[in-house]
Amino acid sequence: MLRYLTAGESHAKQLIAILDGIPAGIKIDATQINIELARRQLGFGRGERMSIEKDEVIILSGVRNGHTLGSPIALSIANKDSSIDRLAGITRPRPGHADLAGALKYDHHDIRNVLERASARNTATTVAIGTVAKILLKNFSISTHSLVTKIGTVEAKIDRSSYKKMISLAEKSPLRCPDKASEKKMIKEITSAKSKNDTIGGIFEVIALGVPAGLGTFCHWDKRLDARIAFGVMAIPAIKGIEFGLGFGYSDKYGTKVHDEIFFSKQKGFYRKTNNSGGFEGGISTGEPIILRAIMKPISTTRNPLHSVDIKTKKEVLATFERSDICAVPAAGVVAEAVVALEVASAFLEKFGGDSLKESERNYKNYLQQIAKF
Amino acid sequence: MLRYLTAGESHAKQLIAILDGIPAGIKIDATQINIELARRQLGFGRGERMSIEKDEVIILSGVRNGHTLGSPIALSIANKDSSIDRLAGITRPRPGHADLAGALKYDHHDIRNVLERASARNTATTVAIGTVAKILLKNFSISTHSLVTKIGTVEAKIDRSSYKKMISLAEKSPLRCPDKASEKKMIKEITSAKSKNDTIGGIFEVIALGVPAGLGTFCHWDKRLDARIAFGVMAIPAIKGIEFGLGFGYSDKYGTKVHDEIFFSKQKGFYRKTNNSGGFEGGISTGEPIILRAIMKPISTTRNPLHSVDIKTKKEVLATFERSDICAVPAAGVVAEAVVALEVASAFLEKFGGDSLKESERNYKNYLQQIAKF
Amino acid sequence: MLRYLTAGESHAKQLIAILDGIPAGIKIDATQINIELARRQLGFGRGERMSIEKDEVIILSGVRNGHTLGSPIALSIANKDSSIDRLAGITRPRPGHADLAGALKYDHHDIRNVLERASARNTATTVAIGTVAKILLKNFSISTHSLVTKIGTVEAKIDRSSYKKMISLAEKSPLRCPDKASEKKMIKEITSAKSKNDTIGGIFEVIALGVPAGLGTFCHWDKRLDARIAFGVMAIPAIKGIEFGLGFGYSDKYGTKVHDEIFFSKQKGFYRKTNNSGGFEGGISTGEPIILRAIMKPISTTRNPLHSVDIKTKKEVLATFERSDICAVPAAGVVAEAVVALEVASAFLEKFGGDSLKESERNYKNYLQQIAKF
Amino acid sequence: MLRYLTAGESHAKQLIAILDGIPAGIKIDATQINIELARRQLGFGRGERMSIEKDEVIILSGVRNGHTLGSPIALSIANKDSSIDRLAGITRPRPGHADLAGALKYDHHDIRNVLERASARNTATTVAIGTVAKILLKNFSISTHSLVTKIGTVEAKIDRSSYKKMISLAEKSPLRCPDKASEKKMIKEITSAKSKNDTIGGIFEVIALGVPAGLGTFCHWDKRLDARIAFGVMAIPAIKGIEFGLGFGYSDKYGTKVHDEIFFSKQKGFYRKTNNSGGFEGGISTGEPIILRAIMKPISTTRNPLHSVDIKTKKEVLATFERSDICAVPAAGVVAEAVVALEVASAFLEKFGGDSLKESERNYKNYLQQIAKF
Repeated sequence: MLRYLTAGESHAKQLIAILDGIPAGIKIDATQINIELARRQLGFGRGERMSIEKDEVIILSGVRNGHTLGSPIALSIANKDSSIDRLAGITRPRPGHADLAGALKYDHHDIRNVLERASARNTATTVAIGTVAKILLKNFSISTHSLVTKIGTVEAKIDRSSYKKMISLAEKSPLRCPDKASEKKMIKEITSAKSKNDTIGGIFEVIALGVPAGLGTFCHWDKRLDARIAFGVMAIPAIKGIEFGLGFGYSDKYGTKVHDEIFFSKQKGFYRKTNNSGGFEGGISTGEPIILRAIMKPISTTRNPLHSVDIKTKKEVLATFERSDICAVPAAGVVAEAVVALEVASAFLEKFGGDSLKESERNYKNYLQQIAKF
Repeated sequence: MLRYLTAGESHAKQLIAILDGIPAGIKIDATQINIELARRQLGFGRGERMSIEKDEVIILSGVRNGHTLGSPIALSIANKDSSIDRLAGITRPRPGHADLAGALKYDHHDIRNVLERASARNTATTVAIGTVAKILLKNFSISTHSLVTKIGTVEAKIDRSSYKKMISLAEKSPLRCPDKASEKKMIKEITSAKSKNDTIGGIFEVIALGVPAGLGTFCHWDKRLDARIAFGVMAIPAIKGIEFGLGFGYSDKYGTKVHDEIFFSKQKGFYRKTNNSGGFEGGISTGEPIILRAIMKPISTTRNPLHSVDIKTKKEVLATFERSDICAVPAAGVVAEAVVALEVASAFLEKFGGDSLKESERNYKNYLQQIAKF
Repeated sequence: MLRYLTAGESHAKQLIAILDGIPAGIKIDATQINIELARRQLGFGRGERMSIEKDEVIILSGVRNGHTLGSPIALSIANKDSSIDRLAGITRPRPGHADLAGALKYDHHDIRNVLERASARNTATTVAIGTVAKILLKNFSISTHSLVTKIGTVEAKIDRSSYKKMISLAEKSPLRCPDKASEKKMIKEITSAKSKNDTIGGIFEVIALGVPAGLGTFCHWDKRLDARIAFGVMAIPAIKGIEFGLGFGYSDKYGTKVHDEIFFSKQKGFYRKTNNSGGFEGGISTGEPIILRAIMKPISTTRNPLHSVDIKTKKEVLATFERSDICAVPAAGVVAEAVVALEVASAFLEKFGGDSLKESERNYKNYLQQIAKF
Repeated sequence: MLRYLTAGESHAKQLIAILDGIPAGIKIDATQINIELARRQLGFGRGERMSIEKDEVIILSGVRNGHTLGSPIALSIANKDSSIDRLAGITRPRPGHADLAGALKYDHHDIRNVLERASARNTATTVAIGTVAKILLKNFSISTHSLVTKIGTVEAKIDRSSYKKMISLAEKSPLRCPDKASEKKMIKEITSAKSKNDTIGGIFEVIALGVPAGLGTFCHWDKRLDARIAFGVMAIPAIKGIEFGLGFGYSDKYGTKVHDEIFFSKQKGFYRKTNNSGGFEGGISTGEPIILRAIMKPISTTRNPLHSVDIKTKKEVLATFERSDICAVPAAGVVAEAVVALEVASAFLEKFGGDSLKESERNYKNYLQQIAKF
């Protein structure tokens, strides 16, 4: 069982996360995490803060001489600007943000007390511990990736003949979009939004490769792996929808046209020629790649501010403007990779157990043999 | 904190659920639950089993003389057909179902051992305990509703000027669709699918009314109420996508066009004129209605069977056919109402506490006053 | 991960439990559970109810043709007397029971609403699901046992040279006491208490055999297996203390005299000649037997009633008398066996994983080899 | 709901804890925590490390301008010696420690990888977050205290006529023992153990004052507050037993002599003249002080080393000696205060809810009125 807590505010001293349940003996170093943190900070459309902060993780515990101990792993990311106590109060809530509902809930009469924690800055910790999950999974040849499929009204035309190629193209693109032609239009879309002091959303896709058949289960609703992944991805700030495989397109065709027929060969064992299900049937992984898409709404902080009400005076005002991005869809995809890695790793360890990498590996290998001989 | 476990197979003696955490002193009787169970069984497009089973709940514990005790509530629904031990074995997995992945995971060489629990029959328990949550919420004037917005390629044109009217029209429709004209076309769509021995999916919407501002929180990812609702709804069998408010439409417009501006009046307090967010900002309820849509894939059991492989012989075969529905989207909506009620009730009790209805009511009333005077 | 919920009141229709997380393929039948339920009902000193109820379990789900499916297991035990709705109200709280605090907490003005759930009758469900854990563990040669070491002021003198013999003697004794001489005095003690319309407590011991080194962990406080066992045992009604190994005797000797020195032989691997620790060091099982003792206070319902106050009139009264036992220490031991089995099984499955018995067995066997070759 | 994770090794950079669920608006500063950390480090019998480390906490998040935000609180305590990577390997496991079982479980062939996390040093984080719970509870006039009742064979004779006085005397004693005469003998006992290169254990008591009737519940085993407290206290390193109220003494008397009779007066409401139960009936708090005692075994690291086996060579050796204390019972009591505060605070927030101090206070005050008028 993998579990974790995160803490931190946008201008607190540090962002902190503790991850419990990683087996002992896994090679890990901060560089791997820093690479992922940098990937989260990239992407055309990011604002000024991204150049201020160049996130670097410190592994505070749970690791000795570059290997996990089995004990909880604590990670810290310093905030360069840690002026939380001195920052001015805010009374004009921003539509689209937690500002107003958060103030009411916690009886905060200074909205700064809300937005500091509600900030997407805090997804840095998710990426940090998600990277630990990625490193764990890499030992079992499981990996998670993301790419951008839509920005504003521009939809990418993606050549899906090779996952490897799609992922590699996405990795080279400033928008994480594997379709060069669409990428150009997307950049234009973002530039145009920026020139109008506005913001823009989009859709990203997460792909998990190497996931074996049999993770998650239909036996109880909260153990369905697709639902658990949906939980995690929907909890990323600004995400308003998620779909697996054909997703919302599933209603356009009859059942016999969409369900992935089952085949068998001595080399591959059971397999499918299609993957409309996005890798899940009945909440269990099928052994095919996990494919999901999620929609990120336009950033809620707009330079051209929206109508609001001062919470003190109750007078009509324009919402506060805090430093922000124009578009952060590529970054959200990177965060989602981390979330998916955490959920897959959690289901993996539930099924295969193991307190040392060696033990988990042995259990896993024997299971693969079991299903090969099924 | 509300928590629950369910148990039961499609042809076991009974379906069982235990719900823990409901305050004492709430009036409850089996009739209310049976009404909801009946709503789950209705809907044009259902198969033969629906006429066999007419679900009736027995409240086994947690209630005395029609009022909750504060102790766990156990609910039982008998299966009329409880021949699980005698039913024939199955070796031809059905694409779209948990059959194959479930068999591999649990090392079951008779797929009956998988499909009995993986059956949508088990959503009856979800509806049963969800109704208890609904009854709890009713004491606070909170309610959850559902309607069908799409079947196959037919999309309803819904007059959204009044939630009350939408809901009332849906309640009278055999397809839970408030748009009479579309309803007709949907029925045709289903009939046509049936005549082709095929199945068909669609989209339903859940609406929660009366939810106060301040449920759920941005403070930790797993406490975001929208994400928790997504978790529950995605865990309903055959659901492949979910979206809140504008959902996947969020990328078509700029930020300034989609975020719900904030207004204030002495009568209403803070309020919005739009509800694009579907009732959530930063994972907290805004006080506006919660609106979500989910896609149900076509039923996976098709009379016109799909290609499969016998798990014993490894020979190519046609998938098993088990008695099934053509379309169950209206039923899935009713299940989702129950799930949303459970998650809202859980977040409600976390915030307001209370071991008796009186105590929860008092705490809630005082909070409403607090935010009215904010 | 093993988890469970129980429900039921003393005079409700049924007692119910759901246990989730048991692997598939384990042979199980109701008879095994009924034997344990009968063991719970035995013991010199039990009251009249024990002859009314002869508990019989019905396995409602999770099992097909005598083997677990991997899905949640629901168990039901009928109450012969299910008159909860008609039973008279109670307003005179009994000292030692949850009566008064429960009434205040839940705002119950009829104490019947408290005592129905607070009744020790509900430990029948604990025994029922604990037996499922026992059956699981038996596949790995792990077993839990109990015996009585003290009743009132009579302390047994137990020959500890052989666990097997101790357990076998206890099993034959009406008081579960392996020391015949003390048993006689204990019976006298109970008879004497009865004649004075009073009640009496005592101490039982639980022994778990076959537990491998390495269950539980020091890595996080809530994963220490001894602490988790203490949690479960202390939650049995009327238990007021628990100790492992030397327990409260640990302060009478110096460190060098009490810590269990470590030895090694090719046959046994690492082993100890003493087991003062009761099978735990640092919250992990050492591979030696788990030994714990717990104290049960005298039954709180006394025929010679205690001073109380009517909750309606606020007048001084004598406490209500409800049908009850004189001494239930042997039964509490049987309940504790079940609790220990549940916690050991839970830690076992966390470490070894496995969705089928075959998979768990394989993982376990390989771990035993690993530590043999360490 | 209060939840927390801790991380850190004895010689890692920092010890870290995250505590989630504390309401907003509570005044808090590091000084209060540092005072408790210092209390943990005091006590006659502590070793050299206590003079090296003078623990100081840094509040990393969850607090702004000295008040809680409602977001998770991260606390950090630096280790002055953070040489974990460079410290020499260990192959001679110490009896009484997690060394051997930990090495086997995690397949660690350097025992340093076990003992760094298994170290009692990590209770510093428990005290740190427990202090936050204490601060929360102080707002409701609830407090937790500890004192030492036995060291080795010396048992204190405690004047129990006034909790206030007992606590105040304990606070002034270097051994946290309120009985001056016994204190002297205890010091002699420790000095004598030291001179023999040995270690010694003892018993401490925790007292919680101001806890209202109605925390915890009999409704489900894992919500019994006494059992939850036992869970936490038993998870403190080296604790081998716990008892509430009369505890193991409960079997020496008849039921009518030990159950706390119920009285009523207009001023006090319902009350007791005795508190044999230690503040719990049926797992719920009665409104009387919570009283528990726990036994700490002698420190497992002894300068006069025990017999062991080298895990590499399998040869007989003497166990490793690591810098250690002679007796740490007073410190264990301070840790237990923190644990009890955490569990009481958790049950408190479950019952009373509240996202701001104001809201929790209002709910609590109204409940107190409810039970006063019951």
